[in-house]
Amino acid sequence: MASRQEVAERAGVSVAVVSYVLNGKTNVKMETRVRVLAAMKELGYEPNLLARSLKTKKTGQLAVLVNYLGNPFEAGLLLHIESAARDESFLVFFQSYTPETEEQLISSLRGRVDGIILLGQQLMTETYDRISEWDVPILSVTQSPNAQERGIPYIDVNWAVLYRQAIQHLKDKGHTSIGYMSDSQSSSYHVNRLLNFQEAMLAEGLELQDEILLNGEGRLENASEVFQRFVNNYPSGLPFSAIICSNDLMAAGVLDVCKKNGIQIPEQLAILGSENILMTTLTEPKLSVIHYPRDEIGKLAMEMMKELMEKRQMASRTLTGHLVIRNSS
Amino acid sequence: MASRQEVAERAGVSVAVVSYVLNGKTNVKMETRVRVLAAMKELGYEPNLLARSLKTKKTGQLAVLVNYLGNPFEAGLLLHIESAARDESFLVFFQSYTPETEEQLISSLRGRVDGIILLGQQLMTETYDRISEWDVPILSVTQSPNAQERGIPYIDVNWAVLYRQAIQHLKDKGHTSIGYMSDSQSSSYHVNRLLNFQEAMLAEGLELQDEILLNGEGRLENASEVFQRFVNNYPSGLPFSAIICSNDLMAAGVLDVCKKNGIQIPEQLAILGSENILMTTLTEPKLSVIHYPRDEIGKLAMEMMKELMEKRQMASRTLTGHLVIRNSS
Repeated sequence: MASRQEVAERAGVSVAVVSYVLNGKTNVKMETRVRVLAAMKELGYEPNLLARSLKTKKTGQLAVLVNYLGNPFEAGLLLHIESAARDESFLVFFQSYTPETEEQLISSLRGRVDGIILLGQQLMTETYDRISEWDVPILSVTQSPNAQERGIPYIDVNWAVLYRQAIQHLKDKGHTSIGYMSDSQSSSYHVNRLLNFQEAMLAEGLELQDEILLNGEGRLENASEVFQRFVNNYPSGLPFSAIICSNDLMAAGVLDVCKKNGIQIPEQLAILGSENILMTTLTEPKLSVIHYPRDEIGKLAMEMMKELMEKRQMASRTLTGHLVIRNSS
Repeated sequence: MASRQEVAERAGVSVAVVSYVLNGKTNVKMETRVRVLAAMKELGYEPNLLARSLKTKKTGQLAVLVNYLGNPFEAGLLLHIESAARDESFLVFFQSYTPETEEQLISSLRGRVDGIILLGQQLMTETYDRISEWDVPILSVTQSPNAQERGIPYIDVNWAVLYRQAIQHLKDKGHTSIGYMSDSQSSSYHVNRLLNFQEAMLAEGLELQDEILLNGEGRLENASEVFQRFVNNYPSGLPFSAIICSNDLMAAGVLDVCKKNGIQIPEQLAILGSENILMTTLTEPKLSVIHYPRDEIGKLAMEMMKELMEKRQMASRTLTGHLVIRNSS
């Protein structure tokens, strides 16, 4: 088969330009691009990346472990990571992950990837040990206490600051009793957000009581069920006048229950989400949220992953988000 | 390194059971599973799938080409495909795809996948030819005229029947002038839905006029902009009393514009979506939709892909969906 060099000669360009075209770079003029493609076709050139991978011992493949792709927050982050990876000529695997599939995961990824991105996930301690033997870097998108212990860098927003801003906003509106709905079961990013909420409440001089912490299990339907039961348990009024949810799907579920039960938003209950997914602009009233910059984080994740692959030590990065106040608070 | 046979002997089970555990099958008792995992650990066993892949010339990898993962319709389908693929021990790549990245796509996937699933996508004719030389089967999730010509099997719902039901429902409510919003640019599945809408209108004896076909470009924000301009162009009233949108994001965009412009739903305009994503249950009023069975289609896609890999000819499959009438129609 023809080489990249022969394609370059036939097209009258440099080998670098041929590579640009193959990698879909946009810095090549259309007419040059057409000439390179024509030369490839004439010479029957087709790059075989598997061969390249055996030669360089690099796979050109990345894995992203997701928690629940049905959550637009995660799907959006994955979209931005894939886009940034494609710009760097990496293919992205993604896999839903639960601790029950840990063995399967390890057996699937070994020898197949140059890096692993945890998207709102944490692995078992033993699994980190096994992966560290492969010499494959791990990066955590969203902060996870367990990854942090293992020295795995993360990217996240500054929840401590953002939750303080959210609580200050609610205090300004007269709320002193503020509930929180989290997902206490599986995924790490909810745990981290909850810890930051608790610290922010204390820093703002507000009390934390057990009955203001709800477990909405991360999904809209579950949050609705849990909140409906909660409303039923407090026939003479809820024990708080505002609630922050650790993701937007749960905030939408709480809002739905309020509407069904005639609870006025924001008069009787103010609601805040934590991500700013598109859905929060469609509910009535529209949901106030913390804005999580998914595009910026997706791009940064790929930049950091490349550095990690070159064996550089990386510090974790914390970006700023901001509050978006709409009509639910 | 220890073999699978040695692990089986140490754990006192058959080699098949070891494979079940490695593949995360659920048909293994917890205590057996623990015994197998303990044996693997003791023997330092770690399966290397790259080696297996070189031996069998199979990669154990599938690619799914998506159009826009920011659409929960596609993210949901991808989630179900990945879940079904995992049950069959396949890893799933996914890649956003546009015709501009065709070369890059080909160079990335060659030698890397055992099958390609088009998720609401169509490739260029030339690309089908090139892939057919690799002996890698292609399956189209959603019907695409161009894939059909190349003899590529598809899975979709029966749009002809579903749109007739939708139009009959609207006729029952007194609507005879029905608009349609599609994405006329890129992706194949909108084209197919549009063709079926047009046929269904004719079959129901209703007229098709140019001004009732809008191009909402597939996304919520774009649909809102397009529909706002359309409303501005008809200050004395819209040229139709009902509209069907070829995806739910656009239906949500149209609904949003109606609310901003004081157009009563469904009194002045009835709105129908075509997928039944979660978001349609959160708008006010809730959106009437065609229900697209994403879980069923995801599972079936993997079944069909396996058959195709075993070189069996596959007929396309059309599933039934159904109408979900809520408050927007």
